[in-house]
Amino acid sequence: MFSGAQMSLYPMTDDFVPVILGALSALDPYRDRFRIETDDLSTLLVGPPGELFPAMRDLFVAAAGTGRHTVLSATVSRGCPGEPDADICTPAEGFTVLGSLEERVAQSLAAVGAARETGRRVAAQFSYYPLGAGRHMDEIYACIDFLKASGVFGRSKNFCTRLDGDAGPVFETLAQAFLRFAPAEAHLALDLTVSANSPSAAARP
Amino acid sequence: MFSGAQMSLYPMTDDFVPVILGALSALDPYRDRFRIETDDLSTLLVGPPGELFPAMRDLFVAAAGTGRHTVLSATVSRGCPGEPDADICTPAEGFTVLGSLEERVAQSLAAVGAARETGRRVAAQFSYYPLGAGRHMDEIYACIDFLKASGVFGRSKNFCTRLDGDAGPVFETLAQAFLRFAPAEAHLALDLTVSANSPSAAARP
Repeated sequence: MFSGAQMSLYPMTDDFVPVILGALSALDPYRDRFRIETDDLSTLLVGPPGELFPAMRDLFVAAAGTGRHTVLSATVSRGCPGEPDADICTPAEGFTVLGSLEERVAQSLAAVGAARETGRRVAAQFSYYPLGAGRHMDEIYACIDFLKASGVFGRSKNFCTRLDGDAGPVFETLAQAFLRFAPAEAHLALDLTVSANSPSAAARP
Repeated sequence: MFSGAQMSLYPMTDDFVPVILGALSALDPYRDRFRIETDDLSTLLVGPPGELFPAMRDLFVAAAGTGRHTVLSATVSRGCPGEPDADICTPAEGFTVLGSLEERVAQSLAAVGAARETGRRVAAQFSYYPLGAGRHMDEIYACIDFLKASGVFGRSKNFCTRLDGDAGPVFETLAQAFLRFAPAEAHLALDLTVSANSPSAAARP
């Protein structure tokens, strides 16, 4: 299989370059398991599906730690038939075992409950695309059932779902949605926005 | 049908709020045909599928006109079965007439060739998701054939396709990919990043 992400960091400051460069060391613990390539639009991460969201979490928390309004935007994918197989993307054991919907929701909720808090509050929204599936809305609705029980569910928006909370459980919720709600061989994509330190958020009632 | 976008503007400057507010008047010519709602993460545009990309183009060109490194990120969707029908989204005549692949490519190329230049050079990348289709990769490959002939094709990247050129033909190419490569009743999503004034782009050979 092939799994990875195209991700971008957007610090809303004149000093966006040092904020981005200063956060990159947060990826160091992952570098031996990932292929990482950067151009002027995004950074490609290719690696095991279970580590994509932890890597993005650590990068984003580091950048948001500057206090600047910062957004991470990412396109996350697994199982794309147009991409070559890559040994580097072999999922961790257990990933491919799909139980009943009830079991998967329970496993996902346990993982979110065990997520370490980071002390960084974030708002996120994402869209979930199960591709090549004739009844794709069934998988989307099953995933939404999990999200509503996750403890970080914000609200349903047009075209996406909003999450609010500490970056730890928010990114774990995203990881579970990505990992557990489609078969291992499925082609799945997830389109993600995560924001911290927004002045608009502070102004919300 | 229901069509629209969740879009966000990211000006990489301390003055990001005035850049965003200053660009919003570019949406004025579209307001009578759109429902527009903003929260701290994104702005929702709901309206006719053929006007989504022109509206985003005008907004982005206005924001990038400040000279600041600015990114527009958007999730664009049509035909989602989970959304209500909306009269406001009725497509313009001709939208639902799908000819052969060759005819569609020719129509799309004609539209891109007629696109007005804006004087603003942009780089874009996007992913195209035909949902609920058993042979979704066929539609993706057909769309890529058009993109390669569009005149603004940059390169294929993992998970997405890159476009480079003037904002006029680039946004028209995106619009054609969104409008012409799936039936009118299909559920289709497109995940978009557009960038201007990047110092990394200037440093490219």
